[in-house]
Amino acid sequence: MDIDFKNGLIPVIAQDRRTREVLMLAYANAEALELTRTTGYAHYYSRSRQKIWKKGEESGHIQRVCRILVDCDADALLYEVEQTGAACHTGHTSCFFRTIEGEEIAGLVFDPEKVYANKDE
Amino acid sequence: MDIDFKNGLIPVIAQDRRTREVLMLAYANAEALELTRTTGYAHYYSRSRQKIWKKGEESGHIQRVCRILVDCDADALLYEVEQTGAACHTGHTSCFFRTIEGEEIAGLVFDPEKVYANKDE
Repeated sequence: MDIDFKNGLIPVIAQDRRTREVLMLAYANAEALELTRTTGYAHYYSRSRQKIWKKGEESGHIQRVCRILVDCDADALLYEVEQTGAACHTGHTSCFFRTIEGEEIAGLVFDPEKVYANKDE
Repeated sequence: MDIDFKNGLIPVIAQDRRTREVLMLAYANAEALELTRTTGYAHYYSRSRQKIWKKGEESGHIQRVCRILVDCDADALLYEVEQTGAACHTGHTSCFFRTIEGEEIAGLVFDPEKVYANKDE
């Protein structure tokens, strides 16, 4: 299938396969997608650091990718994952832990200071 | 909350509030987001048509937005919606109806030829 990378990148939604919680949105380039497919673990491309990263490479909070879905226009991907630990570097299960009004809807599940040497992920 | 629009746009995941199925990924600009918040119905910005659209304006397949979540970096949004009809213009409930290997994992729930005068949505 022809994947429509724009400026070399495609947005990727990671969803917990069991709870169906949306965990995060990140980006992949062709190499990150290929690494994800060949290793079975989620890889992304960091726009700020301009490099590929394996999710959990520092924290241990890896994502085993059970299935990759493509949308109708082939310009967005969905990784169905088994999340080890939590997805968000803030200590929340999901990066979507607050409403647009600023209300936190989920608590911390780990202490990020104990997990990350730096919080750049 | 300061929303981080990049080139004026932010990616938006729409998720079915009840089934937790990820329905689609689209983009919003500030005006589309404001329309979503004030009307309670999902609005997006079409990059190809360069204009705001209300989801379902042609098909009737509107999305009532129950809650808007923001991710940790405030550069992605999640609309939790009640979907009327189906999200995808192809006739599938979700735009993510096939795997990256090309296998369709969900059937049609409506006939797009009967719903869309044109299939541009």
